[in-house]
Amino acid sequence: MGSLEDICVSAAVNLLSALAFLLAFCILRLQPFNDRVYFPKWYLKGIRGSPTGSGSVVKKFVNLDLSTYLRFLNWMPAALRMPQPELINHAGLDSAVYIRIYLLGLKIFAPITLLTLMVLVPVNWTGKTLESAKNLSFNDIDKLSISNIPYGSNRFWAHIVMSYVFSCWTCYSLYNEYKNVAEMRLRFMASEHRRPDQFTVLVRNVPPDSDETISEHVEHFFCVNHPDHYLLHQLVYNANDLAKIVAKKKTLQNWHTYYQNKYERNPERKPTTRTGFMGLWGTTVDAIDYYTAEIDKLSGQEATERERVMSDPNALVPAAFVSFKSRWGAAVSAQTQQSSNPTIWLTEWAPEPRDVYWENLAIPYVELAIRRLIVAVALFFLTFFFMIPIAFVQSLANIESIEKVFPFLKPMIGRAAVKSLIQGFLPGLALKIFLILLPTILMTMSKIEGFSSLSSLERRSAAKYYLFILINVFLGSIVAGTALQQLKTFIGQASTEFTKTVGSTIPMKATFFITYIMVDGWSGIAGEILRLTPLITFHLKNAFLVKTEEDREQVMDPGSPAFATSEPRIQLYFMLGHVYAPVTPILLPFILIFFAFAYVVFRHQIINVYNQTYESGAAFWPDVHRRVLTGLVISQLLLMGLLSTRGADKSTFILIAQPVLTIWFHSYCKARFESAFKKHPLQDAMVKDTLEKAVEPNLNLRVYLKDAYLHPIFKGGVLEQPSTIDDEEDSPLIQTKRTNNRASQQPSAEQSGDITPELRPTK
Amino acid sequence: MGSLEDICVSAAVNLLSALAFLLAFCILRLQPFNDRVYFPKWYLKGIRGSPTGSGSVVKKFVNLDLSTYLRFLNWMPAALRMPQPELINHAGLDSAVYIRIYLLGLKIFAPITLLTLMVLVPVNWTGKTLESAKNLSFNDIDKLSISNIPYGSNRFWAHIVMSYVFSCWTCYSLYNEYKNVAEMRLRFMASEHRRPDQFTVLVRNVPPDSDETISEHVEHFFCVNHPDHYLLHQLVYNANDLAKIVAKKKTLQNWHTYYQNKYERNPERKPTTRTGFMGLWGTTVDAIDYYTAEIDKLSGQEATERERVMSDPNALVPAAFVSFKSRWGAAVSAQTQQSSNPTIWLTEWAPEPRDVYWENLAIPYVELAIRRLIVAVALFFLTFFFMIPIAFVQSLANIESIEKVFPFLKPMIGRAAVKSLIQGFLPGLALKIFLILLPTILMTMSKIEGFSSLSSLERRSAAKYYLFILINVFLGSIVAGTALQQLKTFIGQASTEFTKTVGSTIPMKATFFITYIMVDGWSGIAGEILRLTPLITFHLKNAFLVKTEEDREQVMDPGSPAFATSEPRIQLYFMLGHVYAPVTPILLPFILIFFAFAYVVFRHQIINVYNQTYESGAAFWPDVHRRVLTGLVISQLLLMGLLSTRGADKSTFILIAQPVLTIWFHSYCKARFESAFKKHPLQDAMVKDTLEKAVEPNLNLRVYLKDAYLHPIFKGGVLEQPSTIDDEEDSPLIQTKRTNNRASQQPSAEQSGDITPELRPTK
Repeated sequence: MGSLEDICVSAAVNLLSALAFLLAFCILRLQPFNDRVYFPKWYLKGIRGSPTGSGSVVKKFVNLDLSTYLRFLNWMPAALRMPQPELINHAGLDSAVYIRIYLLGLKIFAPITLLTLMVLVPVNWTGKTLESAKNLSFNDIDKLSISNIPYGSNRFWAHIVMSYVFSCWTCYSLYNEYKNVAEMRLRFMASEHRRPDQFTVLVRNVPPDSDETISEHVEHFFCVNHPDHYLLHQLVYNANDLAKIVAKKKTLQNWHTYYQNKYERNPERKPTTRTGFMGLWGTTVDAIDYYTAEIDKLSGQEATERERVMSDPNALVPAAFVSFKSRWGAAVSAQTQQSSNPTIWLTEWAPEPRDVYWENLAIPYVELAIRRLIVAVALFFLTFFFMIPIAFVQSLANIESIEKVFPFLKPMIGRAAVKSLIQGFLPGLALKIFLILLPTILMTMSKIEGFSSLSSLERRSAAKYYLFILINVFLGSIVAGTALQQLKTFIGQASTEFTKTVGSTIPMKATFFITYIMVDGWSGIAGEILRLTPLITFHLKNAFLVKTEEDREQVMDPGSPAFATSEPRIQLYFMLGHVYAPVTPILLPFILIFFAFAYVVFRHQIINVYNQTYESGAAFWPDVHRRVLTGLVISQLLLMGLLSTRGADKSTFILIAQPVLTIWFHSYCKARFESAFKKHPLQDAMVKDTLEKAVEPNLNLRVYLKDAYLHPIFKGGVLEQPSTIDDEEDSPLIQTKRTNNRASQQPSAEQSGDITPELRPTK
Repeated sequence: MGSLEDICVSAAVNLLSALAFLLAFCILRLQPFNDRVYFPKWYLKGIRGSPTGSGSVVKKFVNLDLSTYLRFLNWMPAALRMPQPELINHAGLDSAVYIRIYLLGLKIFAPITLLTLMVLVPVNWTGKTLESAKNLSFNDIDKLSISNIPYGSNRFWAHIVMSYVFSCWTCYSLYNEYKNVAEMRLRFMASEHRRPDQFTVLVRNVPPDSDETISEHVEHFFCVNHPDHYLLHQLVYNANDLAKIVAKKKTLQNWHTYYQNKYERNPERKPTTRTGFMGLWGTTVDAIDYYTAEIDKLSGQEATERERVMSDPNALVPAAFVSFKSRWGAAVSAQTQQSSNPTIWLTEWAPEPRDVYWENLAIPYVELAIRRLIVAVALFFLTFFFMIPIAFVQSLANIESIEKVFPFLKPMIGRAAVKSLIQGFLPGLALKIFLILLPTILMTMSKIEGFSSLSSLERRSAAKYYLFILINVFLGSIVAGTALQQLKTFIGQASTEFTKTVGSTIPMKATFFITYIMVDGWSGIAGEILRLTPLITFHLKNAFLVKTEEDREQVMDPGSPAFATSEPRIQLYFMLGHVYAPVTPILLPFILIFFAFAYVVFRHQIINVYNQTYESGAAFWPDVHRRVLTGLVISQLLLMGLLSTRGADKSTFILIAQPVLTIWFHSYCKARFESAFKKHPLQDAMVKDTLEKAVEPNLNLRVYLKDAYLHPIFKGGVLEQPSTIDDEEDSPLIQTKRTNNRASQQPSAEQSGDITPELRPTK
């Protein structure tokens, strides 16, 4: 167990590293040549032009205006200043709601922290059990924790009452937040411009028909069963081969442009290239001619393949996007069952075009069920047997065993400062490294499960990741031991016994988790804002690979909030907060700092950096809500276990109502709010339809929807953002490329008020 | 432990009592004056007239035709002869599917029994453990059970393999049956005549509106949001007071008719009555005049109350039955969410009019959630603390303790035959008596939960009853002890430990359950066919209360299959079968006999006796399927527990896949078939709509639907069968009252082929 000193050293180290990161960020972000790393969002929105376009050469790369350095922390208030509606408009609802998770953390834990500091800390401090028991080793943190209360003392009442207060406050906050987010979602849906997915339904498992093609079959079915509403349908092509050709052609075109530029700048010398691998060997030829010929050849291939995909019935997937004449018709079709056989003609609301995960549209029904079984079993094994390496590293990560294994390190480790450093740093680090490897595996597993949209894939991965963190990071750190031992404890003990074992160990692990919060939380967030990896890769690519301006646009990597990995991690902090609130209250301020810092940083990031790849309308909130409640219930059960080992057995009868009520609260919230995230009320659809009919009576919906759900490859391979989707892209805002507004590092201040309507009249 | 002799005595007793019941039934059913007890279904169908209408006086009451007595068992083949489609037509789908549960039992357990007798019984018999261990007391049943296999023997492989075979066979049978029933339901729905509920949706939680009445509000909402489909709506009145007045009036009318009849038969003497309580004291008045006056007075009251209910806005419930122009419109409306607030404008498919549980239509949303929580907690306490009396009686029900408490009984109990009788009979009986008290309580709890149809109430009650039987009868009988002890074992032990404890006790309880099957199963079924209670009450009522022919119609109590109580009991037999199949195979023939006997008896009952009060279209099948699988999973877990105590520890790793696969199978079946019971495919609705439009282009649906969902009280208080519902009632079949076909005790033979079309042309 680390002492208070260890914690202080560790805190200092982490604070310093976080500050160093922040300082580095503040300097780097002011340099024009990093502009595309720290403000890519504004480039993508078309508001910020290339900074290299004007000014002196030096100014292009280094910011010499010293006054900006003095205000180096002003990104923080800037990040907080943008009002909510504008934030949603600017960054999308998903991102805006995502940062509300951190805000929720603040809302829940700020009052709880205050209460614990005022009530539980004095109660614990004056308990004086540890001081009287002389043979026990303890530290100051333990003296502030529940361990300091004598066995069977009446002081436990304070903890029981507080536990109820915490639960009530958490539920109250969660209820409000769920209500808020549901309202935001509904308002967002209602205020949205016309989008193809509002009219469209994804139909899967179209049954084979010997007489008709898939296209005819779909058309006939919907003409018969939705006669007044069916408009058109779009087939789904299996276009993987075509995608490869298009990608190859695109590379060649880039090279072509590059040599063209080179030739234009230096018309004396015609550029040459070699025909071999990457232009490194082979016969030397005229580069422009060579690439023109190659592109022509590929264009021919592409046309043939395109022809084949379009005409070959085997290239068609038994799924289709069916569009309706009104939102009402689509809402009806998405929510009803079409055929009496529930394995065919499966309809669901179509994800927006850029959210579609095309590879999974063709999986037959039975296969889907089997895939899910296999993934569930695989997840079980992954979760329980991944623990072996973690436990191994953790067992190494204590001073004694290191000294034993490497005796030559003893003199170095022996020093107090180094010892504290290692003890404070290593266990958290070991976990952290393992966790980095995981998300990709989990995402692959989710893809195997066969979900058809990127957003649902992310949500499923997040659920898996949460399970993993719960079992391995949380329980794994508390009940140390090998993986199999833990599994055996888990199965071999009665559930009450298990909560007792875990509960009684909790106070002892407070130090470890405080360290973990600092390493994973604080430094992690600071690292997030520095964006070290994108910074390095951008400059590397910029130096060696970028040939054209277009390429520079491409190597810019704005990233996105990465819901699948970051949300489950936030949940760990929620859980730690709930578990330790009545046990070791001193842990709470650390969590509070994490939430506050993370909120500011992520708000800054979604404004300036991240670019959502899709918009699901905060469809993830029910998951967030459920997981916070899961953490709460676990904390309640563990408190029951802990108290029953401390001579407060009767408390069980008082505390047992807590999880029951919490679970009931969950089911109530689910019934009350979840439908806002899953269903599509007809009333709202009708309101929008009526409005649209009144405003644009002559709208030709058929033209608007015709190619909305074409496989992105048929749109020239621009996978990221098909131009038909984002209304913003069609607005005149795009053309208003403002160059050289490098000084405006507070874009929010410049943009306050809804820009779009302001600029619209200039049409 | 009972020995083989005990079992034989018990079997003999039970067989004899069952035979006595059967014999009594065979004689009683041939007596004309019991005709309305044993063939009420035919009276209600209008096919069989009153047997008292013709012939000599003696013949009216006693059957003198001796030849019919000789063929006294011919009801059995008669019951089996009616083909399935006709059975559905005659008795309704609910009943026809209900008896398929017994058939399913036969299908599952007949091959399993055969296999166990061929494989497991020889394996067990030659195990010879019990014989070699001399200090053990054992009996012949134990020698046939798994107890006879030596510790750690390789013979357990037979049981493991067989367990897999049984599970596969059960799943296969269940899959087929689910498929069958789903198809039957869909065919039934498709072939049904026009019914009001096909066009109607129940709307609950209509939000209050300050400007509009509920009626206007409903109309406006659906006119706006379903403009092309809305037809009309019917409000729901809170008519409890009116119902009381109407009931009172009806009694008076019966008396009036009675005196009228009396006067007509004996015109010399005008009948008189007294004005006091039940006509026993008070001043003597002319009966007919008195009742006429009373009825007039009540009619006035009724009219006033009716007026008040119709005009007072407070008598309106915020719910309505909304009808649509087409089945398609209703299907859409039932399956979609109307408002973005999911607590208002809740739509669900309307139950058929006689299935509506009117009292529960007005419960607000939040109250509903709280009611469910309360009932869930109450159910928990009921389930766990009801065990105290059972355990108490069972602890009395062993010879030693009886001898200890009542030493004077010793000489009597000491005799072998009596001892066997008591040991075989008492434990089962004690349980049985407790179980009789339960269903009413559970139904009340379900009503508190707020379901809006009788069928869903029955399903919920059945679920509660199943839980109760599982915990109390099954586990309670295996892990004997007081209620609190059991609860403690349940919570305080690890789940693996718990299955081991229970599993290892199972073989010892085989004798008890064999007895239970005979007492509860065999004799219970025999008692069912004798209908002793309805027989006695009918004759009592007939003698003392019946005044008019109409009254006689009313005192006839056909009953119904009582799904809420009988289905969970069948499930116990399924579970016993699965648990004991690999352990004590000799129990299986007893279960097989139960299923076969019950199938014949209930088939006879639904043809001749029971009259469904509503038709839910076999909506209960998903529950049946799920519960059989629950029993299967429990049996698999218990076998794992049992084998791990018998030195076959490694088997756990082989057997663990079984429950996982079974649960997966359940989720697959649920996804594959459940929607047929919950959803309403648009394709089918469209087909029926199109057909109807072609056949009856001038149908006035508004008139047809106008009063379909009027509270039954407004239809003159005929609660049982509003005439608008049953198409059969409007067919000419009704008028064809065939009198005096007492001899046709094989109505199925007479009726083979679909009668309705045959008779239709005589219109």
